[in-house]
Amino acid sequence: MRKTIIVLLLLTSRAWAQQPDLSQYVNPLIGTQKMGHTYPGATVPFGSVQLSPDTDTIAMFTNGKYNPDMYKYCAGYNYDDKTIVGFSHTHFSGTGHSDLGDFLIMPTTGALQLNPGTKDHPENGFRSVFSHSTEVAKPDYYKVRLEDDNILAELTTTTRVGFHKYTFPKSDSAHIILDLMHGIYNYDDKNTWTFLRIENDTLVTGYRQTAGWARTRTVYFALSFSKPFTSYGNKNFKNPQYSGFWRRFNQSRNFPEIAGEQIRAYFDFKTNEGEAIMLKFALSPVSTANALENLRTETPGWNFEEVYQKGKAQWNSELSKIAITTKDPNEKINFYTAMYHAFISPTVYMDVNGSYKGLDQNVHQADGFTNYTTFSLWDTYRALHPLFTIVQPKRNNDMIRSMLAHYDQSAEGMLPIWSHYANENWCMSGYHSVAVIADAIIKGDTGINARKALDACVQTAHKGFYDGLDYYMKLGYVPEDKKGGTSVSTTLEFAFDDWCIAQLAKKLGDEKVYEEFNKRSQNWRNVYDNSIGFMRPRLSDGSFRKNFDVLSTNNQGFIEGNAWNFSLFVPQDPKGLIQSMGGNRRFVPHLDSLFTMHLPDHFFEETEDITREGIIGGYVHGNEPSHHVAYLYNYTDQPWKTQERIRMILKKQYGATPDGLGGNDDCGQMSAWYIFSSIGFYPVTPGSGEYQLGSPAVDKAVIQLENGKSFTIEARNQSDKNVYVQKVVLNGVELNRLYITQQDILKGGTLQFFMGSKPNKKRLPNS
Amino acid sequence: MRKTIIVLLLLTSRAWAQQPDLSQYVNPLIGTQKMGHTYPGATVPFGSVQLSPDTDTIAMFTNGKYNPDMYKYCAGYNYDDKTIVGFSHTHFSGTGHSDLGDFLIMPTTGALQLNPGTKDHPENGFRSVFSHSTEVAKPDYYKVRLEDDNILAELTTTTRVGFHKYTFPKSDSAHIILDLMHGIYNYDDKNTWTFLRIENDTLVTGYRQTAGWARTRTVYFALSFSKPFTSYGNKNFKNPQYSGFWRRFNQSRNFPEIAGEQIRAYFDFKTNEGEAIMLKFALSPVSTANALENLRTETPGWNFEEVYQKGKAQWNSELSKIAITTKDPNEKINFYTAMYHAFISPTVYMDVNGSYKGLDQNVHQADGFTNYTTFSLWDTYRALHPLFTIVQPKRNNDMIRSMLAHYDQSAEGMLPIWSHYANENWCMSGYHSVAVIADAIIKGDTGINARKALDACVQTAHKGFYDGLDYYMKLGYVPEDKKGGTSVSTTLEFAFDDWCIAQLAKKLGDEKVYEEFNKRSQNWRNVYDNSIGFMRPRLSDGSFRKNFDVLSTNNQGFIEGNAWNFSLFVPQDPKGLIQSMGGNRRFVPHLDSLFTMHLPDHFFEETEDITREGIIGGYVHGNEPSHHVAYLYNYTDQPWKTQERIRMILKKQYGATPDGLGGNDDCGQMSAWYIFSSIGFYPVTPGSGEYQLGSPAVDKAVIQLENGKSFTIEARNQSDKNVYVQKVVLNGVELNRLYITQQDILKGGTLQFFMGSKPNKKRLPNS
Repeated sequence: MRKTIIVLLLLTSRAWAQQPDLSQYVNPLIGTQKMGHTYPGATVPFGSVQLSPDTDTIAMFTNGKYNPDMYKYCAGYNYDDKTIVGFSHTHFSGTGHSDLGDFLIMPTTGALQLNPGTKDHPENGFRSVFSHSTEVAKPDYYKVRLEDDNILAELTTTTRVGFHKYTFPKSDSAHIILDLMHGIYNYDDKNTWTFLRIENDTLVTGYRQTAGWARTRTVYFALSFSKPFTSYGNKNFKNPQYSGFWRRFNQSRNFPEIAGEQIRAYFDFKTNEGEAIMLKFALSPVSTANALENLRTETPGWNFEEVYQKGKAQWNSELSKIAITTKDPNEKINFYTAMYHAFISPTVYMDVNGSYKGLDQNVHQADGFTNYTTFSLWDTYRALHPLFTIVQPKRNNDMIRSMLAHYDQSAEGMLPIWSHYANENWCMSGYHSVAVIADAIIKGDTGINARKALDACVQTAHKGFYDGLDYYMKLGYVPEDKKGGTSVSTTLEFAFDDWCIAQLAKKLGDEKVYEEFNKRSQNWRNVYDNSIGFMRPRLSDGSFRKNFDVLSTNNQGFIEGNAWNFSLFVPQDPKGLIQSMGGNRRFVPHLDSLFTMHLPDHFFEETEDITREGIIGGYVHGNEPSHHVAYLYNYTDQPWKTQERIRMILKKQYGATPDGLGGNDDCGQMSAWYIFSSIGFYPVTPGSGEYQLGSPAVDKAVIQLENGKSFTIEARNQSDKNVYVQKVVLNGVELNRLYITQQDILKGGTLQFFMGSKPNKKRLPNS
Repeated sequence: MRKTIIVLLLLTSRAWAQQPDLSQYVNPLIGTQKMGHTYPGATVPFGSVQLSPDTDTIAMFTNGKYNPDMYKYCAGYNYDDKTIVGFSHTHFSGTGHSDLGDFLIMPTTGALQLNPGTKDHPENGFRSVFSHSTEVAKPDYYKVRLEDDNILAELTTTTRVGFHKYTFPKSDSAHIILDLMHGIYNYDDKNTWTFLRIENDTLVTGYRQTAGWARTRTVYFALSFSKPFTSYGNKNFKNPQYSGFWRRFNQSRNFPEIAGEQIRAYFDFKTNEGEAIMLKFALSPVSTANALENLRTETPGWNFEEVYQKGKAQWNSELSKIAITTKDPNEKINFYTAMYHAFISPTVYMDVNGSYKGLDQNVHQADGFTNYTTFSLWDTYRALHPLFTIVQPKRNNDMIRSMLAHYDQSAEGMLPIWSHYANENWCMSGYHSVAVIADAIIKGDTGINARKALDACVQTAHKGFYDGLDYYMKLGYVPEDKKGGTSVSTTLEFAFDDWCIAQLAKKLGDEKVYEEFNKRSQNWRNVYDNSIGFMRPRLSDGSFRKNFDVLSTNNQGFIEGNAWNFSLFVPQDPKGLIQSMGGNRRFVPHLDSLFTMHLPDHFFEETEDITREGIIGGYVHGNEPSHHVAYLYNYTDQPWKTQERIRMILKKQYGATPDGLGGNDDCGQMSAWYIFSSIGFYPVTPGSGEYQLGSPAVDKAVIQLENGKSFTIEARNQSDKNVYVQKVVLNGVELNRLYITQQDILKGGTLQFFMGSKPNKKRLPNS
């Protein structure tokens, strides 16, 4: 026995020591410029805390008018900026709408300034000039010199705790500012309440309640300082008309219990030259007591380096789930940064003791699973969750359990749409939880009560009040005159989700549900206008809308897309779509045109979320609806065009620079597309268990599966020129199909691509 | 065994049946007119729910200007009003500042109106005209006809549930309005957030978070209807600038999850003639889940009458703790209404499962005690808590445990000042928790950790930041130039509280603490100006303030009082005070003047809380600082003047009519004065264990003690003329002192007063 244990220990420590440092290839700055909307700060995989610098505080509204510049600050940080306002604890990664930015911390010296100043005049406030030359961003580590006061800032995290280290110059008047007013997508009324308690001279607790994108959200915290502060205070920037608080003592200096809507607090220190003051800042969705428990459990000591090394090890463990071999150094950076961005969201949403605040605002206990939040499902059902079924199945199952808990707590009796921190944000369209659930259950053993999951899907798909679903159920499509704006894309998305429900019902042998939803999955046909060969807005009287522009994204019936892109969204039946659109003879040139056409200027003016760089011809990679489109050639008689397009998109749309993402990363969906496509396949149809083969951009990729097996992809002879697949061999047998299945992967084995510089026109899809 | 059980059951039911219906003498309308600030609605003893009609919705501020008319609506109801806005679930009883009014319910028929209308034009809103002729107010029962729509409203409660019964006419369009905007002492920013969930067609949950007198307060609810509503909706009167909520469906009709700052909801019904719709509305300080548990535990069925009978029985059980005999029918009404008002506050503050939200905003469990809130301690330490030590010792001990829990949770490390629903309101002056605690522990076995209690008292009395305490500790008084406004009264109150701490320390044998606080208890001498014979504001240089008006209450150094009244506030040492003021020879005429003097008009204009009726000469009974004053003759050579003054005050200051209270009832303090004084004694010095004898106004009073014994007071030959005590006999032995002790009472026995129409001038105080 003893011997075995020693051997195991040796193996474990050896495995640890031998784990390659893949984190070195990750550059968190990728996507922080232009449209990526990622943040450069510190976080652990799927961490609750995302501790990152915020570079501006643009109000969402100025004098009641929407400020479109806000959009650059979805993740708080814009690479073009020259100043840092401070370091806040929560950030979305890559979203196209935003919230968060809770609890900004900023160290300063000298005269106390309690306003942030402006980007043009940082000297008028507590913000500081910084330079990218002093900036280091690595997984779970961020460092920068705050030049105004010559303070070195370093950040790392655990799942629930932000760990700050500020190295000061000598100062009789050093301050740590805690700004409860700061927020992302901030506006006057966003804070509904904030609360602050000075428990003792090193411990502060409190919370912030906001009505932002998440309508009713409270985050609790516990903040511990490595050194006692000598004094403290606060300023309440919005005195209530009447507080009932008899002002017979000074509440703004050394008074330990503060509450109000708009508060900034500060803590004073004396520092020696080079003295570091550290902060541990724990979050909880439940209470300050839980925040304190999180703090004490996850960060018992004050060793910054140890916390960082643990975070780095967590990242290396996750990143090593796919080990790639490539001759291109940028490929490693792009690939592992994509892996990094794919493993940030959804985020853990429960305390170390398992409790979390549910959608019903009650405290719930996550019984036997880890509860997650931040479900950007309109994006992530496409490739991120399918990727998780391969490399994160345990987490993916817990995410589904979290969705089912949401369903149980939902007043509407629905699965999440875009859910976040005990709130349903009702953002985007469709009910894509069902795609994630069906995909996972169809692919294998999830341990989830599948019957309950199917019921939840069916209930969700029957809620007539939701986004025209009543009309859809009655007419077979969402009529533009009744539910205008995005009636076509909504119809297409409902139809795909319905197909997923049908597949799940089929697996469970529920014929009645299967038939109902299989029928509904055909509804895409009802918005296809054969006379023009595009999907088109249809009115409740059955006619198609007269005025219609197939190029425009402005009020033409589609969300984040035009008819050219979105008409191709029938992932449940690409062959049926091709047939409707005139068969290969007409469809292939049509698809070719998409990638080569010239878009008019108005397209860019009216289209959110993407830059000109995010577009190839008329193909929009910067938004998600086209993510499967390049793979559609696989269903035609010219599948090699998928191979060349994929390689082109990988090259053009992803770069190892801050502006390297042509569109929002969208909680990892853009990155998941990259990961799949660069290793040679993609889940065109979640819920099918199949992955369409493309053209691998790496020489080799080894996927470590949770079942202990591994699946290896080899791309023999691949290069920038050799992008065409000559043949594919699975476990020594040549593959006579253009896809592999989840079972092929889970069994383990080797998939060999033999590459060449010219298409092998004999490789065709089966019937 | 079986036999015993049957006997017990018989005894119980017999006791029940035999209990006299004392509730019939209670008139909850007393004090609802002029300055009493009581409410007429339904509540059980110390209930968490106070379900009562609100007659107007005067905003605290109109265009930013304070509206003094608000003051009439401290309890939501003004007897002079002709309309009722609706029935809300929380009310203070008798306070001079206010808050609450949570969750207004109003039944209507016809066209839906979602604004309350005005008192002049009730037809423009949902409020209704009513008449006192249809109004019935009894303990735990209220009934009124809402004339606008001919709806009969009836209310009763359990500790945590308001039970409504509305009898409708026939209507195709009956509504129950749930107004989350309504509040007492309301203003635009008072609601910080409200939240509403329609769980199903008979169940609604939600909460309301306010920043009123209590700065950070959330009340959760669960509302159950006896009949399913056919539809529902809401109006959000303050749309946030940006909610993040994609409006692709109608949130105002039949949408089950609503949140915002200013919301009114409604529920639609069809009713037959005479059909009753009932509502159970449960509150919780913790969560909607707990509110639902409270609802299901306390009101499992739909029997309105049964709930009322239980509440009535609870009241009779409490009222019967003092059984009086009197020839005056009004005396019974005044006495039992005083008992009723004395047993409303403090209020139970925890769920049926024992959990409550603490001062630190975390959820705590009341372990082995009932947690209370609503501590109006500046008022109630005087007579209400001393009364509780006799007739509610168990509850009083739990109230002290609640204060100690507050201390444990306090960021400042202090016992409550004026605390309420997880908030310290910092209202009024002194730290009178210590008087309540010392009084109880000195009087007997409380089961409380006395050492911990003393520590809490000492800690509280050492908080320099609080209300000039730093100066007080340094100079021996609060200097008017440093802490202006109420420096004299604050000094006097600190000194008394310090004496209480000294007595507790003495009992526990802590000589060090005793000496410190016994010395501090002498500090009243530092603000006594011998040159004028009054207490007087003193400056930090030791001099007395030059400009000084002994009659004025406006900024003369006293809170709710002038120098004439407040200079007599040395309850810990009346003899010392009398000596300072020149001995009996000068003190008695001085006291006589107080009761006979003529006050200038400006006194009434500048003095809050009292009417001209609340004053006798210059003696102010409507505010608390003089409550002991009439008993001060007991310490002179003319104690019979106490006897005549007490009888006069009882007659003049208390009447069996809505305007029967000359000042705020102040959570039962005014009523407790009445109860004590009408049975013949009063606790001039809480912490002494002694009660000064006055002149009983009842013929007989039997006090039922929790130890199973009883203490009987007999007033032989008493009448309106025979107000003078000739002799007093305790358990058959003539009493040679002018007071009795707590031990005299707790031992049980009989105290006989022999009354006559002329003073017995031989009865003098000892030494």
